[in-house]
Amino acid sequence: MSYSIDLNSDVGESYGVYALGNDEALMPLISSANIACGFHAGDPRVMRKTIQLALEHQVAIGAHPGLPDLNGFGRREMAITPEEAYELIIYQLGALQALTKAEGGVVRHVKPHGALYNMAAANSELAHGIAKAIYAVDSALIVYGLSGSALLQAGKEIGLQTASEVFADRTYQRDGSLTKRSEVNAQISDPNQASEQVIKMVTEGEVQTLDGQTHSIQADTVCIHGDGLHAVAFAQSVRQRLLAKEISIEAIRKKLKTGGEANA
Amino acid sequence: MSYSIDLNSDVGESYGVYALGNDEALMPLISSANIACGFHAGDPRVMRKTIQLALEHQVAIGAHPGLPDLNGFGRREMAITPEEAYELIIYQLGALQALTKAEGGVVRHVKPHGALYNMAAANSELAHGIAKAIYAVDSALIVYGLSGSALLQAGKEIGLQTASEVFADRTYQRDGSLTKRSEVNAQISDPNQASEQVIKMVTEGEVQTLDGQTHSIQADTVCIHGDGLHAVAFAQSVRQRLLAKEISIEAIRKKLKTGGEANA
Amino acid sequence: MSYSIDLNSDVGESYGVYALGNDEALMPLISSANIACGFHAGDPRVMRKTIQLALEHQVAIGAHPGLPDLNGFGRREMAITPEEAYELIIYQLGALQALTKAEGGVVRHVKPHGALYNMAAANSELAHGIAKAIYAVDSALIVYGLSGSALLQAGKEIGLQTASEVFADRTYQRDGSLTKRSEVNAQISDPNQASEQVIKMVTEGEVQTLDGQTHSIQADTVCIHGDGLHAVAFAQSVRQRLLAKEISIEAIRKKLKTGGEANA
Amino acid sequence: MSYSIDLNSDVGESYGVYALGNDEALMPLISSANIACGFHAGDPRVMRKTIQLALEHQVAIGAHPGLPDLNGFGRREMAITPEEAYELIIYQLGALQALTKAEGGVVRHVKPHGALYNMAAANSELAHGIAKAIYAVDSALIVYGLSGSALLQAGKEIGLQTASEVFADRTYQRDGSLTKRSEVNAQISDPNQASEQVIKMVTEGEVQTLDGQTHSIQADTVCIHGDGLHAVAFAQSVRQRLLAKEISIEAIRKKLKTGGEANA
Repeated sequence: MSYSIDLNSDVGESYGVYALGNDEALMPLISSANIACGFHAGDPRVMRKTIQLALEHQVAIGAHPGLPDLNGFGRREMAITPEEAYELIIYQLGALQALTKAEGGVVRHVKPHGALYNMAAANSELAHGIAKAIYAVDSALIVYGLSGSALLQAGKEIGLQTASEVFADRTYQRDGSLTKRSEVNAQISDPNQASEQVIKMVTEGEVQTLDGQTHSIQADTVCIHGDGLHAVAFAQSVRQRLLAKEISIEAIRKKLKTGGEANA
Repeated sequence: MSYSIDLNSDVGESYGVYALGNDEALMPLISSANIACGFHAGDPRVMRKTIQLALEHQVAIGAHPGLPDLNGFGRREMAITPEEAYELIIYQLGALQALTKAEGGVVRHVKPHGALYNMAAANSELAHGIAKAIYAVDSALIVYGLSGSALLQAGKEIGLQTASEVFADRTYQRDGSLTKRSEVNAQISDPNQASEQVIKMVTEGEVQTLDGQTHSIQADTVCIHGDGLHAVAFAQSVRQRLLAKEISIEAIRKKLKTGGEANA
Repeated sequence: MSYSIDLNSDVGESYGVYALGNDEALMPLISSANIACGFHAGDPRVMRKTIQLALEHQVAIGAHPGLPDLNGFGRREMAITPEEAYELIIYQLGALQALTKAEGGVVRHVKPHGALYNMAAANSELAHGIAKAIYAVDSALIVYGLSGSALLQAGKEIGLQTASEVFADRTYQRDGSLTKRSEVNAQISDPNQASEQVIKMVTEGEVQTLDGQTHSIQADTVCIHGDGLHAVAFAQSVRQRLLAKEISIEAIRKKLKTGGEANA
Repeated sequence: MSYSIDLNSDVGESYGVYALGNDEALMPLISSANIACGFHAGDPRVMRKTIQLALEHQVAIGAHPGLPDLNGFGRREMAITPEEAYELIIYQLGALQALTKAEGGVVRHVKPHGALYNMAAANSELAHGIAKAIYAVDSALIVYGLSGSALLQAGKEIGLQTASEVFADRTYQRDGSLTKRSEVNAQISDPNQASEQVIKMVTEGEVQTLDGQTHSIQADTVCIHGDGLHAVAFAQSVRQRLLAKEISIEAIRKKLKTGGEANA
């Protein structure tokens, strides 16, 4: 049996004169790029450059829309309504689509950013607002969300293809949730342990939880971080170990949809 | 011989709790709506409501992108480069396209706003940046610009269909330019005189200038203002007089383009 | 015995070309003006014009700082930390102080806006962040907060003079809280009933709750709304009835503070 | 005879998660810090941290207000009126004053940023708007401007103390203006040459122009850049050479003003 996994990363998070992240180094390592859309990070110039970089490396392009909070980098929860979420997702997604089209590419997926990602994981109404927005713009788009989240559930209900996101560098709790960052042992810093976790997820559909149990988990895509001193080396190491186990790294294949825009 | 003219208006210029303009009253009177895209005015909520209103009244939808200056309403010139113009036009246009698609409509034209409109009328390099942006997103879009402007020239050179905009409520100078607002007699406040000016432009291709000469002018679309106390009554009056002269009010017909997206 | 009450109103909430509220009509009716500071509403131009208007009518000037959410008018809760609140209060307050000083006035009080007001009423840590900010800028400033709120408590603990705000047009629950807007009977639309409520609060220190009980309440200042069709007429009516009962309308007198800046 | 010179640097230009510049390394080298005020760069958090850093190093604190253009870092000219400049200077200056006061410091000077600095150097009306704003907030503030600029002229006319800014790393034209960056030989990259230029300016009041002439120049303060790979080393080197020539590095002494706030 052959296995494959998608490696995705949040990119295009610079803004004006402000440089953030390590997009040039990350892009050759990943198969899907989540590009910030100007609300929490990114601007038209940065989006365009990032699209060009993704196309150059044949990385699948996705939208990474966030809350309208540049100063807080979209990490502060805001009490927006599902309808507001619907509208700001469409706005940001459309902006990225047009910039991508102008460069000769196509947007293939959407992954909400930061507080919006977290809120959409827990809040079903908000998740439906987001899923409806994505579907309204292009029903062939793939929605990325936390494994087991309300967002993936909403995506399925609305008819979107979904990608269940897992983490290489985070530990899991008995119920399948991520160990909170504030707790000890939340992070995995050893690339070997991180890649073992991913390999187990991909090949066995299970994750070993922090208390020694196993929990079944759907792993379609692994989030790769580009910030921090050792992030790129870590990503490189995980990637090498996956390839050594003959797990191929590739963007999620779009399922055929009759009448959809999968071939657009 | 039968004549027709497009009446366009800048709409969707509210923002958050801030209401501006008179879109409900204007929409039944016009054939093309230029919808603000969030940089100088408008937000995702306002854009969506305005798109719905335009579709309800079967008014052609256009983007009305502006400079990133909400506080100045896009009316203050900013020294942006042609490349920056290219990028911010695509961003705003894409956002409107997606919101329009989600409501079942299609964006058909683009008219830059305020200082960007004026700069694009005079600055050929900037005009080319804008025209290229529009073409890159959808070559079937119609670019609206001041009659005789660098923007229309750039649009033609790049292969876009253009719409030459004239004014009912402004007087013209011997060289075909608008009399500056700061000067006496710049404005036409009498609806009769205003509609006579439009009728002459449409049926004879000429405008009588302030000094009594005539100047040839291309009149594809007339800008209708919605702000001010008497704006709607004025627009209504001009519209009635045009119809009375059997000049039909309709959006500009898209020319067939082989391989274009005119039928999208 | 002689009674007095402060009537305060949120003003200066216009932004750029966007006009909001009815400041010219309200200013002669009130004794304290809470001026928006540019984060949720207002801009340097609007702030300056509003300061001039307040000085003209000898109305006490206060800062009305809000969350950094112009599009949501500061009404959407945001997960900011007490330290972030501390910093954004000082920033906004300082901006208003300088504009006020340039016009020859002095800022005398601070009332947080919208979601920040509500969060500061319930969240003691956030309330302390805000109170500390006010004290750090000028210990003689008066902090306005909901009667019985965490903000007033924090203000007192930190050493600020406080003003307990009550409402003429809202009903109260048995525990002294406001009836939620979503419930029936939340609003009082009869100016007579509204002024009776205020008179009872001022002269007896009690409010009749919706279920017919009485609850003790501290009434230092009454919030007067300027938006809505009948708001100004309502305010005028309440004001007349208070004056008819020989309750004088005046800004809260600053208590003498040794070493403070009360005389600045 | 003893000489002294002020070394100033633009600091506090980070924003939210975005780090910019090298403030920690620069602060020990300079005598005056120009702190961004939130319009072109900086935010309340960044401003506060930068104020703390300046106080720690006993560096004089100044405001560095800019155009409202975060995305363009205040470097794109905008057609603002003198009155708009007046208002946005007061707003930004007041915000910095309050944050500085909360940390126990005092704002001592104002240097406009980027395009606003350049516009104020050439445009006398705009320069007067800015100078009036500074004076209205605190007549004891020192205005920093390009040597020979309209801003310094306006400052003097209005009654402000001025600081004539010169550059160590730029060459000068025969008329005393800076060689444009686009031209060859605009930059001085040799620290020795740079410090020689400053020493000549300070001790002889002259600068050698690119064509070999000398031009008289007033040198009160030297702009030190912190961005770029070698900026800090360059600054360190220039500083050492000045000290070696017994030119002391110190903030500009405030002149006594009767009735002013110099001792605030």
